[in-house]
Order: sequence, then structure tokens, then C-alpha cells
Amino acid sequence: MNSDTTRRFKRAYGLDEIALVPSDRTLDLDMVDISTTIAGITMKAPIFGSAMDSVISPKTAGLIGKHGAVGILNLEGVQTRYENPDEVLKKIASIGKANYVQLMQSIYQENDIQDELVIKRIKEIKEQGVPVVVSSTPQRAAHLGPLAVKAGADAFLVQSTVVSINFESKTNKNILNLADFCKSMPIPVMVGNSTTTSVTLDLMRTGVQAVFIGIGPGAACTTRGVLGIGVPMATAILDAAEARDQYKKESGKYIPIVADGGIVTSGDICKSLACGADAVMIGSPFAKAKEAPGQGFHWGMATPNALLPRGARIEVGQIASIKEILNGPSNTDDGSQNLIGAIQTALATVGAQTIQEMHHIQVVVAPSLLTEGKIYQKAQQLGMYKK
Amino acid sequence: MNSDTTRRFKRAYGLDEIALVPSDRTLDLDMVDISTTIAGITMKAPIFGSAMDSVISPKTAGLIGKHGAVGILNLEGVQTRYENPDEVLKKIASIGKANYVQLMQSIYQENDIQDELVIKRIKEIKEQGVPVVVSSTPQRAAHLGPLAVKAGADAFLVQSTVVSINFESKTNKNILNLADFCKSMPIPVMVGNSTTTSVTLDLMRTGVQAVFIGIGPGAACTTRGVLGIGVPMATAILDAAEARDQYKKESGKYIPIVADGGIVTSGDICKSLACGADAVMIGSPFAKAKEAPGQGFHWGMATPNALLPRGARIEVGQIASIKEILNGPSNTDDGSQNLIGAIQTALATVGAQTIQEMHHIQVVVAPSLLTEGKIYQKAQQLGMYKK
Amino acid sequence: MNSDTTRRFKRAYGLDEIALVPSDRTLDLDMVDISTTIAGITMKAPIFGSAMDSVISPKTAGLIGKHGAVGILNLEGVQTRYENPDEVLKKIASIGKANYVQLMQSIYQENDIQDELVIKRIKEIKEQGVPVVVSSTPQRAAHLGPLAVKAGADAFLVQSTVVSINFESKTNKNILNLADFCKSMPIPVMVGNSTTTSVTLDLMRTGVQAVFIGIGPGAACTTRGVLGIGVPMATAILDAAEARDQYKKESGKYIPIVADGGIVTSGDICKSLACGADAVMIGSPFAKAKEAPGQGFHWGMATPNALLPRGARIEVGQIASIKEILNGPSNTDDGSQNLIGAIQTALATVGAQTIQEMHHIQVVVAPSLLTEGKIYQKAQQLGMYKK
Amino acid sequence: MNSDTTRRFKRAYGLDEIALVPSDRTLDLDMVDISTTIAGITMKAPIFGSAMDSVISPKTAGLIGKHGAVGILNLEGVQTRYENPDEVLKKIASIGKANYVQLMQSIYQENDIQDELVIKRIKEIKEQGVPVVVSSTPQRAAHLGPLAVKAGADAFLVQSTVVSINFESKTNKNILNLADFCKSMPIPVMVGNSTTTSVTLDLMRTGVQAVFIGIGPGAACTTRGVLGIGVPMATAILDAAEARDQYKKESGKYIPIVADGGIVTSGDICKSLACGADAVMIGSPFAKAKEAPGQGFHWGMATPNALLPRGARIEVGQIASIKEILNGPSNTDDGSQNLIGAIQTALATVGAQTIQEMHHIQVVVAPSLLTEGKIYQKAQQLGMYKK
Repeated sequence: MNSDTTRRFKRAYGLDEIALVPSDRTLDLDMVDISTTIAGITMKAPIFGSAMDSVISPKTAGLIGKHGAVGILNLEGVQTRYENPDEVLKKIASIGKANYVQLMQSIYQENDIQDELVIKRIKEIKEQGVPVVVSSTPQRAAHLGPLAVKAGADAFLVQSTVVSINFESKTNKNILNLADFCKSMPIPVMVGNSTTTSVTLDLMRTGVQAVFIGIGPGAACTTRGVLGIGVPMATAILDAAEARDQYKKESGKYIPIVADGGIVTSGDICKSLACGADAVMIGSPFAKAKEAPGQGFHWGMATPNALLPRGARIEVGQIASIKEILNGPSNTDDGSQNLIGAIQTALATVGAQTIQEMHHIQVVVAPSLLTEGKIYQKAQQLGMYKK
Repeated sequence: MNSDTTRRFKRAYGLDEIALVPSDRTLDLDMVDISTTIAGITMKAPIFGSAMDSVISPKTAGLIGKHGAVGILNLEGVQTRYENPDEVLKKIASIGKANYVQLMQSIYQENDIQDELVIKRIKEIKEQGVPVVVSSTPQRAAHLGPLAVKAGADAFLVQSTVVSINFESKTNKNILNLADFCKSMPIPVMVGNSTTTSVTLDLMRTGVQAVFIGIGPGAACTTRGVLGIGVPMATAILDAAEARDQYKKESGKYIPIVADGGIVTSGDICKSLACGADAVMIGSPFAKAKEAPGQGFHWGMATPNALLPRGARIEVGQIASIKEILNGPSNTDDGSQNLIGAIQTALATVGAQTIQEMHHIQVVVAPSLLTEGKIYQKAQQLGMYKK
Repeated sequence: MNSDTTRRFKRAYGLDEIALVPSDRTLDLDMVDISTTIAGITMKAPIFGSAMDSVISPKTAGLIGKHGAVGILNLEGVQTRYENPDEVLKKIASIGKANYVQLMQSIYQENDIQDELVIKRIKEIKEQGVPVVVSSTPQRAAHLGPLAVKAGADAFLVQSTVVSINFESKTNKNILNLADFCKSMPIPVMVGNSTTTSVTLDLMRTGVQAVFIGIGPGAACTTRGVLGIGVPMATAILDAAEARDQYKKESGKYIPIVADGGIVTSGDICKSLACGADAVMIGSPFAKAKEAPGQGFHWGMATPNALLPRGARIEVGQIASIKEILNGPSNTDDGSQNLIGAIQTALATVGAQTIQEMHHIQVVVAPSLLTEGKIYQKAQQLGMYKK
Repeated sequence: MNSDTTRRFKRAYGLDEIALVPSDRTLDLDMVDISTTIAGITMKAPIFGSAMDSVISPKTAGLIGKHGAVGILNLEGVQTRYENPDEVLKKIASIGKANYVQLMQSIYQENDIQDELVIKRIKEIKEQGVPVVVSSTPQRAAHLGPLAVKAGADAFLVQSTVVSINFESKTNKNILNLADFCKSMPIPVMVGNSTTTSVTLDLMRTGVQAVFIGIGPGAACTTRGVLGIGVPMATAILDAAEARDQYKKESGKYIPIVADGGIVTSGDICKSLACGADAVMIGSPFAKAKEAPGQGFHWGMATPNALLPRGARIEVGQIASIKEILNGPSNTDDGSQNLIGAIQTALATVGAQTIQEMHHIQVVVAPSLLTEGKIYQKAQQLGMYKK
């Protein structure tokens, strides 16, 4: 074993491995304020709904917006390819596992994105009186960005598996220049996904108004198995927060960071905030809503890639309404409902008045590993073993 | 990865992750004394029964008291809300999982706490000739405390998810001042739950006679999933013990600490003592008693919260009498029976004459993780796989 | 989190968590010598059979001896309590789980140890021309020791859950003085079980000829769950080896150490030797023999304790003959057969000519944890999931 | 616990425990070049097919070669012992588990290697216009090496469980002198398997053109259970890479290293490259091919050892064609298909243009341990639990 082991192999932590420690004070719920402002949009709660076909339709964007969070519509999914996306979504939800990947590939190959539908969907959200945030890949941003502005979007997210400002290509002369794009856009631009301090810093310097953090750990993402790439979320957020603080010092501007991927329970959201996130983006918690376009299923947006599909479809069920998921009352105790109430309670319990104060709460590494005792207990609960 | 990772992310240990190392001497059982005095109450064994509806009724408080431990009655549970709590308890034990949370919420909303029942239950315990310890939340302590004194209670536990002496509120002017409350009460006051050195120290300085330690890890508690909050018990006890020792230095007073949460087996109790606990409070081990009010089920007291239920109901079965659970003889080898005999044997084996000496026994971090070999062996024992 | 955490909580390693690293040379099998001499007995292979009712009868002691290892007969088990132990053993093997502990307790209470049977069993082993090693608890050693000598035993093992030379008692004036006992015995005395450097050193200074190392991790032992006590074996061996080396320096005498507990596969034996063991004592691998007295079952010797039973009974099956288990040929690849061939191959592979050289082979901490991938693979092998 | 613990027990990491971190730049796929040259053979992709009976036949060597990788034919397996190996392979694939080891032993004992078949198989590969690489054990290398040259092989791999240049034997005077063998062979010689820096360095100094790295962790290898030997692959590669870099400094020659064992998914391949491998050798991914000689099964080459069988047979299924496994399109998202596309995508994503640049990509230790949440999610996907 050599010294190089230490240099090359640094330990990184996932949200599953950490927990929050109460501080020296406790607050009443009336002392707590969990609102946040991201890219000019003031949100009652620090939660975005993921720009995924199984999560955000114009309808769920409206409902999520009404209940204090913001759903982001993916401008490259089925909503902008199909006049009647519900039929397509029903097909995806009902197909057998064996034919799933092929169906997804054909759905995306058959219909390209239609400008009229882009405009239509944005207006459908706008009409519900909530903020409109939409997303595209870097490849399509130059085209979809102005279209979104025209249709009335409030902010634009450029999202890619990995974004860095140094993108090199031999043949592709049409690379998005992020700094130019930000300047050209009359609405705030957000960008993702970064996992390191230095990339986050680079991105902030281009003029974006928020950086999304995370790669690989999402419930509907198999990037780590296919590519070997992944940075556990707790460490990724902590590193990005360092970039944000450094950029604040050098520029005076506070560019918020949004944790994106692998955030499943209200506990995960609370931990993300304590690691330094200004907000989170969540997919599977909303995919479980009765109103979710996925109709009880959740899948990743990487699937359509014809040559190298990533992103599995998982059955998540339909557990409650979007209202109940965000504001309760909860009829379960697994952290899947009343997300906003849980965040408020967590801040009150550990003694943080705002998300800013939450950034300084003590975190411990405390893996909830499966020990023999736990598997027994769990198995008994599940009725697997007889007593 | 940055240096901040180390500063913010400290490793904390659970009881599952540690084990005790024998010292250089061994004792005969006749050399060992496991009695302890907490808040003026001398206990044959360092064990409290948790103030939970599924664990402590006047009947089980009496039985636990007779066999060497002390059961704490929750003054805000079904016992003080219902004239005939057995009917309500039977309902809870027999309801299906889907309707459990709603039933619990309705049970608590229908009947408020009745002063006559508070007095009646305390007297029912008192008549059995055992120490009477009762508990309430901080919100109700000012009312229930004097009532408990009047009825003859010997000690009073103020218990909350998290207690700190710095509780801030905008609207709530009725905050419990713990120091004033301690002075006003003619019986010893105990308080919980703390997880850190500084909060424990703060609490001791208010005049309480014992501090309960722990949050999150309990068998019937899902705080970590919902709120992200939790401090593994071994570390929490060690940190609180440091506060106790420091307070002893500064004040000359020894304020005992009681480990509360996630303690399931006699082995867990022994490890808690070695980490520095003066006693433990246990729920699920007593919930398994034939006489337990939970009738084979165990549930957390956080459930009734209408908006954000925490605390699952688990089926724990009815394994033995309270006498057998505390004093044996045991008919199993899983650490669930003859708790007192096990504690005595552990002290003798590692060479500690008293609980004070137990505080200095060497501990090793030795996770009993599920390895492939263990899962095989376990699966074979359970008859899951054919040979 | 405080500095005390580091001082009190040291990391300890189990055999499951380590692996051996090949050195700079490789040997042909003809270069390797795995013989060892423990307490005057030269063994072809460094393996003792555990002094347990399910493992060693006079018959299996003979077979194990003939094939290169040494079985140790427990002088306090069923063999010396029953004229016809096979009937009793059949009962134990066939009883239902619910009645097991009670049966064991009654078997031990009904018949005490009979001197004639002690002598008879020793002679039955002696007649087979193999070394006779027998064991007792410290309580019975003063009586059984001379009896064993008279019957012709070659070495005597005093075995207890924990032995230290500082045993204190109020009422028991009959404590075994190990130094006096060693002097009084004309045959070598071995002692167990120690887990630390200092206890091992203390024991060596009493004049014993070998020290057995280990507590808690055995397959048929639940000490950790019941008492919280346990030292993972790899660390325990390493620490004891340090005592042995130190005692060699101070006295010139080399007192071997025998790893005892939790050693299941030939790989475990090889790792024990690399950690510093001069030999191992194994139970479950022999309990799986067709000739084993346990008849397909294995149980701990701590069970009979009426008040606090420890040690579960597990079904281990009957996989092969003792000859095949020790010398092969093996018909499986799970490390349960041809133990001697495996040890020889391991030494050859890593380049150690003798067990002494094996003590210096590089060890890595490399937990074979259950990762998602492994559980899939394993589940597929077991036919649990369909493809 | 003593200081020796630290000295003897170094932490080593497996591929399961690490993940790759994107760098500061991203590349288009057209910027990435994953070709490599090993032992004079230029490969489109850095992948060898393992020299195992269940993986490489002349037919699959041809297919693998045509699609950008190189299959290595084992000259000591069934292909060179049986005129019609397909019959034998069918028997192996269809036999029950209980009789598997015995069948394997008899298959190898019945027929020895036939020179004519060695020549015939090599020519069968050669005729398909792909590079021919063959392997043997050190024992047979002196005989099979010249035969392979005569038949037209392009490179020769001497493969053993462990190879070191210091092989000592009492009786065996016929030890392969690797330096002499390399000089005598007109084609490049490669050697395996090494796990440490110093052995790798020794081997490079003999004149070999590539060193294979790894022992124990392979899917069809039970070396760790039987012998206790094993070095987790990520650490083994890192250590070997250090040897390669050091040898380059001292000799000016760059001798590539090939990671061999336990590499299952495209993610594993990408991680191996980032740890420092110049190529990988994989077995089970090709054993899953429809054309694989194992016909849905995969087994280790250590099995035939009559006395101490290692290497289990596992059912891996037949998931896709070799073309699809190497070049896609993939119909799954588990990293088992389109290996070449995945490697290219990974390099592009983390910003490495070549395998040389991949050697410097940041790696994090981030175990994908089974946490409670994950086991739930997984179990739900598998339909094990009802919702």
C-alpha cells in the first residue's frame, strides 16, 4: 500500500451516512422561516420538482407551485413532443419491463420537439399563476431559451449529466457558450450539474443565477454502474457550498446552490440544507403523487439515449396528493409527506431560524448500516420471518 | 474534497458498532453491585421503563418496580385521557396498518388529559409500594407537575424531542423556565432529551437531578427519516458523560445521565453503562412483556402529532413475564430476558464492581456488519435457503 | 464530539474484514511445513477441535487425531455425565427450537459429572493412539486435573468465558490459583480465554504452556448480544501475539497462542495464522462432520446456565467425513473441506515456509461487505430472484 | 489495541467502494480515444476476454476481436483436450450442482492436452483475421510457448494464481525462468497475476511486455474463502501502477498493466482505468454472451484441482450478442452492454481524452453500502415486498 492511496482516494459521504445534531437552542415553529429566493423566484419552501417526464406536467407544475414549491418542466420530454402526452405516459407506465427501454427509445425517436408545444406548455403553467421554470440540455438551449422567454418563462435551467465551461469537441462547432447565453437571456439562467468546488466556481463566474449540484446518486439514475462516475451528495453539496462562499467573497454575489439527485425523504432534504444547499430538487417524492404524470412510475431522462441507456423505471406507487406531500397532513411516518412541515420542524428542533443558519448546524457521520439486529427487526415488521 | 469535510463531518458511533473488552480482573457475581440512585430514587438495577403507552400502565409500573427497576408513567397518554384505557389499547393493537396513524390521531383528539385521572393513576402506582415517576412535555409541565406532587409522585420527568434551555418563540409566552420549575417542585425534576455535551451541561445548571440522553435511534422512532436528526447513542452517552464530569468539577454535584432510545438487548444496556450512562430507559424490551399494555405491539409517542406523525407501530410479540424479563430465568439466548442477571454477569466478566467502574471499561469499535458469511449462516438458521 | 471518543473507542477488526497479501516469493507445496508444537504435543496441522459436546466425543477425538489435528474433550459435558451419551445427543439434535434451552438445562441438572466416566472417556481416546487433551472450567480444575493425569491425559485446558489471574470473590474461597495448579500438574496446562495483551501476558507468567485467545465471536456463542462483550478475532490475535513476543523477550520462553472462536473456513484459519496465531481451535467445521456427536447440529457450552442461557443451537448439516474435512479431497469450494491442504496452499501462495513465517505476512483491511452487486449475484446463485 | 495494528493492517479498497469525480472539462465523444497497445497488439478498446473455458473458444475469440477487444484462449482447458469441446461444455452447463465439481475433475483427468489441438485452435482464431493471444500456466509454458509461436500466436500470457520470480521448490527442478522464457520467445510474453508494487516491479524487470494484476476478487473465484488471500482490486491496480511508473523511470520502458478479476460492469472497467490500468481482462461479462462457450454458465479455471477445488460455477444467463455487449445498442441499463460506448462516454464525461489521462482522474471512496433505504427500494423493484 502506498502513499498514493491517500492522495488519490478521498472519502466522500452520502446523505444516508450523516445525521444532524441539535444545537444549544430550540425554536418554536413560529420562529422558523424556510423561504428562499433562487434565480429571482421567491419560494415558500426550498424545493424544486425535477424536470422529468414522470414528475412534471403543466398540471403538476401548477399544483406544486400553489403549495409552496416550484416544478421545473423539461422542454425536451414527452410534453413538447406529443400533443397528447397522457397517452404516451400511460403506455410507459403499463409496458412490461422487458420492452421498456425499447419503447422509450421509439417514443423519443418518433416525435421531435415542436416549438408550438413548447410555447403551449409554458402558457399552461403560466395561466395557473405560479412561477414558470423550464429546462433544456446545453445542445438545445440556444434554440429553446429564447422560445421560453417569448412564452413567458421566469427562469431557465440548462441541465446536463455534467456541465463544465470547458467543453471540447472536434466536430461540434455549435457548443453553448454559457456566459454569452446568460448575457443574451433576459431571464435568470440556472445550470447543472456540478459536483466539485472548482467546476461550481467556474460556472458561477459565467453569470448563472444558481448552480445545481449532483450526479449519479438519483433513484432513477444508474450512472455509477454504467460509467463508474458519482460523487456522494453530502460531500458534493459541502464542496459546492465552499465554491459559493468563495465566489461571494470575490464578487459580492451570493449564487445559490440546489442539491439534485438521490433526495427521497424529508430527512434527506433537511440534511442537504445542513450540508449547505439553498434548495433541493426532488423527483421520486413527487412521482409518488396521485397527480404525477408517471402514474405510479418514475424513470430517468437518460433512458432515451439509443446506444447507452441509463436510468431505470421503478414503480413508486401513488401515495398521496401533491398538497399532502408538501403540506400534509401526513398519514405515514416515513418522511414522504408533509415535506414542508418536516423542514420547519427540523429547523425548529436543531435551533436554526433560516436556511442560512441551517448551513452551520453540526453534522455527524453515522451510517445507518444494516446490522444483524436491524435486519431482524425489519424482517419481523415485514412479516418475513415467523416469531 | 476540502478540509471543511473534516471539520463539519465528525464520526459518531451507535451501540451496534461497539463492544466491551474484558479488563485485567474478573469478579464473582457476589462482588458486583449494579444498584444506582437517580433523582433520589434508589434502584436495584439501572433500568427505567419508558414513558410510553405501550410500555407503562399503573400495573406494569408496579411489576417493574417490584422486580428492581422503575417504570415511568406518561401523564399525557391514554392512561390519563380514558377512564378505561384497556379498551383503547386493544383497539390500537388490533387495527390494520393502513388505519393506524388515523386511529392514533383520533384517540388523542377525542379526549384531553383529565386531572382526576392523573391523580388516580399515580395513586394506583403508589399503592403498589414502588417509587412513582411520571413524565410530561414541557408544555404541560407547569400544570401537571404540581398535580403529580399532590398525588404523591416521587420524581418528575420533563421530556421532549429536544430540550434546550434556550427555547425561543414569537407567540408562545408560556415557555417553561426549567430553573424556576425545578425550584418550584418539591420533588426531584429530571429532563430529556439531550444529545450533546453543551446542552447537557446547560440542563444540569438549571437544577435538574438527572438528564436523559438520546434522540432518534429508538425502535419506535423515525425522527432520522423524517427530520434528518439523530446522534448515535454510544457517542451521545460519551459526550453527555463528559458534561456530567465537568459539572461535577464545577459544582461538586454528580447529576446522573440516563441513556434513552434504541436500547434493545441486555448487551445494549451493558454497552450504554460502559459508555458512561448511570442508567438506561428502555421501551421495546418491556413492550414484549405479557403484561405490557401494548398487548404485543409497541409504538412511539410522537405519532399523535396530527400534521407530522413520527413513530411507527411494530409488532414485538409477548415473550415472557416482566419478572422473567428482569430477573429470569431466561428461556432464550437473545438478550431479551434476565436483563438484571446479564448486567451483573457483564460487570463480573469485565471486572467492574459498580456502574461507576463500568464507566472506565475499554470499548472497541467493532461493527457487527452483515458480511456474506453471516447472511448465509443467518439464512440457514432461519430456514430460508435449502442446503 | 470530544477527544475522549478517540481515547475510549479504538477500532478492532474481525477475520471477515481482512485478507492476506502475497509476498515477493512463491513456494512449491513441498517447501511448506505447517506442523506446530503446542503444550508438548506435536501436531501435523495447527488445528484443535473445540471442547464442545457437539464436536468432540472419544470417537471424533480419535479420528481428528489420526488425520493430523487434536480434538479436546470437554470433561464437563454429556460424555462424563451419561454412561450412554449418544441417546442424550440424539434428543438434543431432534428437539424443537422452542424446547431446546429447557432440555439442555434439564440434561445438565439431572446428572452430575462422574469420575469413572471421566477416566473411561480419556482411556477411550488414549486407546486410539492419539494425544489426549481434555478441558474443564476453573471451578472444576482442581478436581478434574489430577483425575485426567491419572487416566493418562497429555495436556489439560482450563477454559472459561474470561480468565484473568485476578479473580475476586466474597463467598467463593475455592478460587483456582493458576500458578499453583500449573506447578501441581505433571502434564502441561493450557488456559483460555484471553482477549488482550495484558491478560495474555499475566497468564503466561503463571506457567501455562499455551493461551487460548478469543471471546464472543463464535458461531454458537451469543455473548455479544447478551453481555455486550466481544473483541473481534483479528485484533485479539494480534494483541495476544504481542504479549507472546514480549514474554519471549522477558523469559526466553515461547508460549504459543491458539485462536478460538468464530473460525469457520480454511480461509479464516489462514488469516488467524497470519495475525499471529500458532494454532486455531474450531468447532463448527468439525460439527459438520458425518461422525460428529452433534448429528448435524452445533451448540455452545454456555447454554446449560439456568439463569442466563447463551449459545444458540444451529443446524449445520453433515457435509463430509472428518478425513475429508481435514485432508480432502474436497467436493466443495467453500473452504469447509481439506483444511490442511488449504493451509498448505495458502502458505505456499503467499511464500511462507512455516507458521512462524506466516506471522509476518502482510494483511489488508478489506471488508467483504454486502454491496448491492454482491447481494444480486448471491441471490441469483441461490435462485431467490428470477432473471 | 496496539500500534502494531496500524502497521500490519492497512486499508485496501475494492472497485465497489470507489467512484470517479468529473474534472474541470467535458469532452465531446469525438475527442475521446480509448485505444491501447498491449504487448505489441493495438486494441480498439482496452478489454481482454478472460482465458477461461466458459468465455473463450476460437469462435468467441474471433467475434471479440472483430468488435474491438481481444479474447485470450486458455491452452490448458477443454479446447485443447477434446476434439469436440462443445459436447463437454454442454455437459458442464447441464449438470446438477451436487455433481459439478466431480464432473470437472473427471473431464480434466480423462484427457490431457494434445499438441495437435493446441495448433488447431490457434489456427482457427488466426483464420478469422484477429490477434491471437493464448495463455498457459508456468508449468506448461516451456512446452506450450514454442508450440503457440509455431501455430502463429501473436502474444503469450503466462498465468498463475500468484506468480513471483522467486518460486522455490525442493523436488521441482523444472521451474520456469521467466527472464529466459521471455528471451527465448519471438513473440511478446505477458505474465500474471501480481497484486503488489514490488512483485509487479520484479516481473517487469524479467522482460515481460505486460503484467496482469489481481487475485481473489473474481466472480468465479473463491480464493479468499478457501485461502484467506485477496487484495481488493482498486488498491491492487493503484499499487501496480506505481511499479509501472517506477520501472518507466528506471528503464525508459512503459510496461502496461491489465486489471484482471472482479470486473463486472462497464462502470468497473472505467474505475479500473482511473486507478491506473492500461486495460482490463473480464470473464463474466463475456460469459453472458449468447455465443459464449459456457452456454449461460460461468466457472473458474481453478476447479479442476482434485484436492482443493476453488472457483464456483454460477448461472449468468445469456443476455445479448458479443457485438451488443461490446458495441451496443444496449437494451438494459445495468452496465452489462455497450462496454465500449460506456468507456468512451465516461472518458468524455470526466474530461479524459485518453486512457493515459484517465489515470489522473480524481477518485473518491464512496461505498455503495446497503442501507435500509436501499434494501427497501431494491426489494420493491424485485417485487419481494408488497406495498
